[in-house]
Amino acid sequence: MIPRYSRPDMVAIWSPETKFRIWFEIEAHACNAMADLGVIPRENARAVWKARDVEFDVARIDEIEAVTKHDVIAFLTHLAEIVGSDEARFVHQGMTSSDVLDTTFNVQLVRAADILIEDMKGLLAALKRRALEHKDTVRIGRSHGIHAEPTTMGLTFARFYAEMDRNLNRLKKARMEIATGAISGAVGTFANIDPAVEEHVCAQLGLEPEPISTQVIPRDRHAAFFTALGVVASSIENVAIEIRHMQRTEVLEAEEFFSAGQKGSSAMPHKRNPVLTENLTGLARLVRMAVVPAMENVALWHERDISHSSVERNIGPDTTITLDFALARLTQVVDKLVIYPDNMLANMNKFRGLVMSQRVLLALTQAGVSREDAYRLVQRNAMKVWEEGKDFKTELLGDADVLAALSPAEIEEKFDLGYHTKHVDTIFARVFKD
Amino acid sequence: MIPRYSRPDMVAIWSPETKFRIWFEIEAHACNAMADLGVIPRENARAVWKARDVEFDVARIDEIEAVTKHDVIAFLTHLAEIVGSDEARFVHQGMTSSDVLDTTFNVQLVRAADILIEDMKGLLAALKRRALEHKDTVRIGRSHGIHAEPTTMGLTFARFYAEMDRNLNRLKKARMEIATGAISGAVGTFANIDPAVEEHVCAQLGLEPEPISTQVIPRDRHAAFFTALGVVASSIENVAIEIRHMQRTEVLEAEEFFSAGQKGSSAMPHKRNPVLTENLTGLARLVRMAVVPAMENVALWHERDISHSSVERNIGPDTTITLDFALARLTQVVDKLVIYPDNMLANMNKFRGLVMSQRVLLALTQAGVSREDAYRLVQRNAMKVWEEGKDFKTELLGDADVLAALSPAEIEEKFDLGYHTKHVDTIFARVFKD
Amino acid sequence: MIPRYSRPDMVAIWSPETKFRIWFEIEAHACNAMADLGVIPRENARAVWKARDVEFDVARIDEIEAVTKHDVIAFLTHLAEIVGSDEARFVHQGMTSSDVLDTTFNVQLVRAADILIEDMKGLLAALKRRALEHKDTVRIGRSHGIHAEPTTMGLTFARFYAEMDRNLNRLKKARMEIATGAISGAVGTFANIDPAVEEHVCAQLGLEPEPISTQVIPRDRHAAFFTALGVVASSIENVAIEIRHMQRTEVLEAEEFFSAGQKGSSAMPHKRNPVLTENLTGLARLVRMAVVPAMENVALWHERDISHSSVERNIGPDTTITLDFALARLTQVVDKLVIYPDNMLANMNKFRGLVMSQRVLLALTQAGVSREDAYRLVQRNAMKVWEEGKDFKTELLGDADVLAALSPAEIEEKFDLGYHTKHVDTIFARVFKD
Amino acid sequence: MIPRYSRPDMVAIWSPETKFRIWFEIEAHACNAMADLGVIPRENARAVWKARDVEFDVARIDEIEAVTKHDVIAFLTHLAEIVGSDEARFVHQGMTSSDVLDTTFNVQLVRAADILIEDMKGLLAALKRRALEHKDTVRIGRSHGIHAEPTTMGLTFARFYAEMDRNLNRLKKARMEIATGAISGAVGTFANIDPAVEEHVCAQLGLEPEPISTQVIPRDRHAAFFTALGVVASSIENVAIEIRHMQRTEVLEAEEFFSAGQKGSSAMPHKRNPVLTENLTGLARLVRMAVVPAMENVALWHERDISHSSVERNIGPDTTITLDFALARLTQVVDKLVIYPDNMLANMNKFRGLVMSQRVLLALTQAGVSREDAYRLVQRNAMKVWEEGKDFKTELLGDADVLAALSPAEIEEKFDLGYHTKHVDTIFARVFKD
Repeated sequence: MIPRYSRPDMVAIWSPETKFRIWFEIEAHACNAMADLGVIPRENARAVWKARDVEFDVARIDEIEAVTKHDVIAFLTHLAEIVGSDEARFVHQGMTSSDVLDTTFNVQLVRAADILIEDMKGLLAALKRRALEHKDTVRIGRSHGIHAEPTTMGLTFARFYAEMDRNLNRLKKARMEIATGAISGAVGTFANIDPAVEEHVCAQLGLEPEPISTQVIPRDRHAAFFTALGVVASSIENVAIEIRHMQRTEVLEAEEFFSAGQKGSSAMPHKRNPVLTENLTGLARLVRMAVVPAMENVALWHERDISHSSVERNIGPDTTITLDFALARLTQVVDKLVIYPDNMLANMNKFRGLVMSQRVLLALTQAGVSREDAYRLVQRNAMKVWEEGKDFKTELLGDADVLAALSPAEIEEKFDLGYHTKHVDTIFARVFKD
Repeated sequence: MIPRYSRPDMVAIWSPETKFRIWFEIEAHACNAMADLGVIPRENARAVWKARDVEFDVARIDEIEAVTKHDVIAFLTHLAEIVGSDEARFVHQGMTSSDVLDTTFNVQLVRAADILIEDMKGLLAALKRRALEHKDTVRIGRSHGIHAEPTTMGLTFARFYAEMDRNLNRLKKARMEIATGAISGAVGTFANIDPAVEEHVCAQLGLEPEPISTQVIPRDRHAAFFTALGVVASSIENVAIEIRHMQRTEVLEAEEFFSAGQKGSSAMPHKRNPVLTENLTGLARLVRMAVVPAMENVALWHERDISHSSVERNIGPDTTITLDFALARLTQVVDKLVIYPDNMLANMNKFRGLVMSQRVLLALTQAGVSREDAYRLVQRNAMKVWEEGKDFKTELLGDADVLAALSPAEIEEKFDLGYHTKHVDTIFARVFKD
Repeated sequence: MIPRYSRPDMVAIWSPETKFRIWFEIEAHACNAMADLGVIPRENARAVWKARDVEFDVARIDEIEAVTKHDVIAFLTHLAEIVGSDEARFVHQGMTSSDVLDTTFNVQLVRAADILIEDMKGLLAALKRRALEHKDTVRIGRSHGIHAEPTTMGLTFARFYAEMDRNLNRLKKARMEIATGAISGAVGTFANIDPAVEEHVCAQLGLEPEPISTQVIPRDRHAAFFTALGVVASSIENVAIEIRHMQRTEVLEAEEFFSAGQKGSSAMPHKRNPVLTENLTGLARLVRMAVVPAMENVALWHERDISHSSVERNIGPDTTITLDFALARLTQVVDKLVIYPDNMLANMNKFRGLVMSQRVLLALTQAGVSREDAYRLVQRNAMKVWEEGKDFKTELLGDADVLAALSPAEIEEKFDLGYHTKHVDTIFARVFKD
Repeated sequence: MIPRYSRPDMVAIWSPETKFRIWFEIEAHACNAMADLGVIPRENARAVWKARDVEFDVARIDEIEAVTKHDVIAFLTHLAEIVGSDEARFVHQGMTSSDVLDTTFNVQLVRAADILIEDMKGLLAALKRRALEHKDTVRIGRSHGIHAEPTTMGLTFARFYAEMDRNLNRLKKARMEIATGAISGAVGTFANIDPAVEEHVCAQLGLEPEPISTQVIPRDRHAAFFTALGVVASSIENVAIEIRHMQRTEVLEAEEFFSAGQKGSSAMPHKRNPVLTENLTGLARLVRMAVVPAMENVALWHERDISHSSVERNIGPDTTITLDFALARLTQVVDKLVIYPDNMLANMNKFRGLVMSQRVLLALTQAGVSREDAYRLVQRNAMKVWEEGKDFKTELLGDADVLAALSPAEIEEKFDLGYHTKHVDTIFARVFKD
């Protein structure tokens, strides 16, 4: 985790305090379930909840762990200090550390997913607003970085909306992938604990019981989770690259927002760098890099080995924190992106109408001109535009051979931008369904 | 694609013949739709279908492409040779090559997904059969490669079933991710073609119209597809590693099936190598390696660049062909896996009952012995097993201090395997719901 | 391997014919060494060389393999058919299949590296030629896609030269990494074969004997090899991205070469797509994707498992073939790249001198103006350029406050391009040492 | 960075204090060089060194950065507070932030490489010591996890030594890759600063001047650096997997060291988990995951974009810290690894001599028995071993048909372990050259 690329709510999920709080809830709910089953005395289960409103002393737990070399035991010792060692003596009975650790990790991932889902909704709202705002702001569509046909800025925002809406869906599915818990013992047989405990604890924590676990919750779930995040990150890169292109000096169809007071921006107004979207490009790489180790983590030996653990200590917090930050940053960038419609028109007209040459070519052939002749007619006028700086429509209107096939009105019509935007509403209706 | 790791049905999806057949269907259905709209004459649309039952001549198309340097034009030229160039003159009208290429790619991926889904169902059937067969075949559960507590071979198969069942679900979702088509023109504005054409063609091909495309179908869909395959591959590795471990000389709890006539296996019966599952480990890496480039493909420039194309020419066929082969191979391995229950018991008893030491420790403390004393009692008997080769239960039954806390019957009970298998039915009921 | 992205010499390295030829050489040289040691009769060693000029019949070998299920045995059987089964009876004595297979794989990789090294030299020659040609062709340097300060096109080529020169070095080191052979038996102990055989065979094949092998040559070597290729591919992407940017419609400082007859280029002269460099961007991803599985291949179980094999059957040929093609394609692109110096100047002047604002700001402060005042002076003139389309130098020359600090000549000097190019020769001398 | 997987010396390299100290050195040396050139007054250069022994106040710098939003300016402001703003007024003259930042990053990487190189030497020493110690400790070699032929534990250590020695070499090369600095200005043209400054600063910092930079040092260098680390990590995994296998309950040829007092280890002596090497397996994945983003960082736009920066803020420290920790941990594991020679022999004899069946088969054919007969003879005795638990040698010595071909002494000889270890010294001489 890099502090400058993190936000407090997501960071809090990964704090020791949060972790111990979840550990406590698992243990306390498990005691309740065991009391329900008659396995432990009700009063002991009840006593554990004394710690409900007590801040756990992280330093004290660390101190104990330094001696016991075991994190869960250290926590339980500290818990016993709070609720009384006699009252606490049934806590964790029949359970394995992994029952607590794995279930906790999934609770954290679920909470992280909840934040990411909210982030995504915020981004979608921004994209939708900008899409509607610029539904009819015409700009040139580009393939291969080369001018192709007109489109609108609204369509650009709308396609990012559609992509991020798919990503919202992927995040929801990813959340479901890891919303399970397991309290099933050393090799998953429930030898020392009743499955009812797992069911109760999971229900209380908003999880499904893992249908079959070993010592651990199977890691294909986590692989699916982190790959989903990798896809989301790739889409962030996709939007970021578009904005970086738009802000290029030669293009200048948009700029990341600059506050009025931001130094340097007015003495060198040509030097506003798209540093936020460049940063997002890098952050996307960071989120994506968790995908391979998350997949490598799936093949654990037999009922578990612990190779996945160090990986997850890293990618659990780092990936969710980075993606949260990236989604928030992108939302802000989209929300405040300064759009330059005039520059969009100027860019489109950079080659004075040439962008319409394909329509003219088609019109000529539809008017009965042979393909070869049509090509020749377009070419000779196009070359005057390309090499001599003439205007394409003017040249066509002055070319007798062209006029023999197409009336001036027909030629004019080929330069009508409405031809290209006539289905924008249809597309918007598809994308923004509600 | 490596021929030895491929199967004909999946290979056929990626053949030029299949590709051209899909191209044809897209063009022919598009003509129908355009005729419905009154954009082209009905008889021309009808004429195109003359090619419905004609084999396209791939060599001829290649020949034309060598001249035109354009694959779609080459195909259309060949199509015109079949249906007549006058009849064919409206084919592809208003369309862009990408309309055909991208929609075709998705049709191929959907068909590939259909095969993979069937493969997975076959694997699930094999896993379920073996799980039920070995529901009560006890073997030692292992954490860290070290004996932990007893479990059953059926639980091992059942957990692979549950994992692959999740993967079946992931494959179905992956199929949905890429089951879209687009016929929307050079920058996705439908400038030259009515959205109704896209709707008709997609309906005929079993696809959804892409709500908003540019020149291409957005690549986050493909990233999601290939990451799903990567997760499936990781699970294949998970099963493969388990079997490789089981076949180790020292473990020998299972062996890949060897046909009676297979050379070398009987003169050196100790040298049967788990080459199929080792191969699956490698194939998993190959499938997974497509994940990163698939994610890198998402961020295309503006309305499209063509950087994704060479990647997809590779990973489209290679990944689906390899995964199909791997799933089929794994199914066969699982189906015919030779299980050695006796060796499982022998392994479990390698340390003559020591595996039960934790239960004994717990029983002693529950019988009122202090934690320290219980530990000391277990330790002194365990050490005789570990260092002198004694039997743990026998030692305990001969230890007066132990007998002071636990009756012989209670000691016996701690070595009862039923304790560990009592919830197997519960777990099976969770996993095999129908 | 995708045929359209492959070249015959590299493909030939990976053909069955080449493979069997290398197998033959290893076996024949090994026989020589064994005859030298007196282990086998000289005449048998000599007899094997009868096959030196015989084409091996790949179909026949495949036929035998279909029966024996073992590729090396199939080859040896075929070899015996050629040299006589009695004469051939000592071939492969004391050897393990892996001795042949692993040594062969490394021979192939070495040959592949040799081609890649030659490719790289070709690319370097092209880059150097273009660097010298455009040493003084001024264009704007850009950070963040935004105009920064002038540089020259020659410096761009020179930096790619320096980067590729490092890559040449990396390829040479990568070649050394895998230029070893091993003939050391089933677990690398030379139990059945004398180390002298390995030494002789390696010497004949231009390899070093692997100091210590197991059944296989250690795979960290191959990981190092493929990671080196991944870095080279990343540099190819670096050059490709630069050219793609230069060819953007709005920038148009360069174009990939278009042959005069190339269809469509003259009727739509604005639509020349940088498809070669876009393709190179994708090919770079393909080469890079081998890096992760190559690293995953390192950790084989004990003296070998065969998980690496399927991976290498793919990435061995695919990665070298793709990189060879990519280097050749990039060389051609660089060699024929059409450079537009006029557009470079026009782009640099897009904001009529604003690009020099930083020099002016500095000059004012050096002339004693306070930082705040200097900033204000620059800003008020810059804004006229930015918002009203004025020329920066003209405005400065008309601003009395500016003239109070700087003479007209001093102002003129700030717009002198020579200021930025004065060290180009120094840099060239560093880069092109010979 | 995960604190529990980090060591202080490497962490210190990445502290703000170290960073600012390097910034200071760059600026101060640059002032010296500028004074040498007569560009700035000597006394100002001299004055800067007043800060040589002053602790920079990180909190103060952060405070300033919160206002200026620029880290280098914040540092320079703080520096001016120390040396006096008038004295400091020439500091950084003609330089760009990247000159400082990129050169600093490389200094940090060089220092990190130095630690890693020392780590590797420590690991090599441990491996060598253990190799010599166990040169003649026979154990079974395994291919595919299956017993093959005898080898020695010393050879296992020796091959890890050889592999790590190659990694030492790779680390040294990686260090050279990034041991460059650049002080070349906004686009690398030295427009505002003399190349002599770069040369002086680099010489003082132990770096080579980057022959040609843009605003940044080219990132192929860093890609090469991080890929080298990825290969090293893969080798760590290789060793870790071997040890994990050796510690499996059924194998138990070695165990990670357990301190006498380590809880749980003596009451359950069978439950000593190889958690250190499992952890190393995971850490290897963490180091490797930097490889892909490091390669993606190479293709920056034009003279620089800042997408690489966030990636490097993460992988710079995290990867070097993790690898340092992993190397140190592995060294300790190797150093203290408990080896069980008796278990090695017991494992080798698990199938009572069957492991020698191949030698017997070969001996029979060499004695003139036909391949088919030899096979039959071996098979019938092998089966008695396999199925009835007999001893292979005893059976052979009692088989008249075998005795007809081989004398008892010849049979005995086939079971001589010396046959397999006769070249160990040769191999050791190759590996341990000095």
